[in-house]
Amino acid sequence: MHQVILNHVSKIITLTPEEKEEFVSILQEIKLSKKEKLITEGDNVDYNYFVVKGCLKASYTDDSENEHILQFAMEDWWISDYESFFNHVPARLTVECLEDCTLLAIHKDAQNELLKRIPKFERFFRIKITNAFISLRARVLSSLSKNTKERYLEFYEKYPQLEHRIANYHIANFLGIKPESLSRIRKELV
Amino acid sequence: MHQVILNHVSKIITLTPEEKEEFVSILQEIKLSKKEKLITEGDNVDYNYFVVKGCLKASYTDDSENEHILQFAMEDWWISDYESFFNHVPARLTVECLEDCTLLAIHKDAQNELLKRIPKFERFFRIKITNAFISLRARVLSSLSKNTKERYLEFYEKYPQLEHRIANYHIANFLGIKPESLSRIRKELV
Repeated sequence: MHQVILNHVSKIITLTPEEKEEFVSILQEIKLSKKEKLITEGDNVDYNYFVVKGCLKASYTDDSENEHILQFAMEDWWISDYESFFNHVPARLTVECLEDCTLLAIHKDAQNELLKRIPKFERFFRIKITNAFISLRARVLSSLSKNTKERYLEFYEKYPQLEHRIANYHIANFLGIKPESLSRIRKELV
Repeated sequence: MHQVILNHVSKIITLTPEEKEEFVSILQEIKLSKKEKLITEGDNVDYNYFVVKGCLKASYTDDSENEHILQFAMEDWWISDYESFFNHVPARLTVECLEDCTLLAIHKDAQNELLKRIPKFERFFRIKITNAFISLRARVLSSLSKNTKERYLEFYEKYPQLEHRIANYHIANFLGIKPESLSRIRKELV
């Protein structure tokens, strides 16, 4: 369990055995079933979550009750509502399990303490959030210019493992198209 | 000149006199005139820029040659094409001066060296990029649900100083509306 996150962290920073021990001591294991919610809109989010096993979606529900899926998370990804986590405002996102999930949670106080005690984690989280920023900006640019087929191919490249784990209507929602259009695109590409 | 960026940095981290000296030694001053381009789509971007004076826009041009303004930057903001800066790919953004600008540029090699020599800067850049990520995600959520008037008010709150410095058609472009709609909204709000 802890080895998974230690391997993940060690891709970016090198920890001593004592630092590894200190890091894993702040992790809380969470198990959720498919369809359970990790975060509900309006929550005050105190945790940052690392996905050990399973797959989740982060979505936003607009005033007309339409759901917009903004992100999927799977093994080795981090997920939270970072606006709520960092700025102490109610969450605007809802994060729901699409499969049974095992997560490791870090409380924000423990994360802040970790950053003070082992400043290498500043580097780790800087690189993680930089990648998230670049990825989100790339998605904004795609939505401005790419056609549906291009965006589907981009999704397929970014989440190759998810194609067969996620319901078609969730993928279609993420791409902002109708499920029928997704089926048509897939047929065209075969 | 350097005092401006040192004040900016000192809001997040505390530097010793020697560290301040080392930090300012890697900064390159750049002066550009209104309408000059700091970054052109296709460039390999090697610099991260801090705005000492002036105002710029970062935009994306789609395949139909339509410009989409994604961000404004003014005093005390950082700007670059971070996808290009971090991932060594050609820039997709164009960054242009809307006023005469004075900038401080940090080369990516110098920034990496700085992070090694003064790890406090990991914290500084982590917090900066986290804020950028939260702000971008908030903008995505607004575009999904808020109406034009709400988005204008949000712009006004976020960039109160820019309202009178930026041409109406640039603000309208940023909000994804026609300049006439912006005039109408402003009249309604007076």
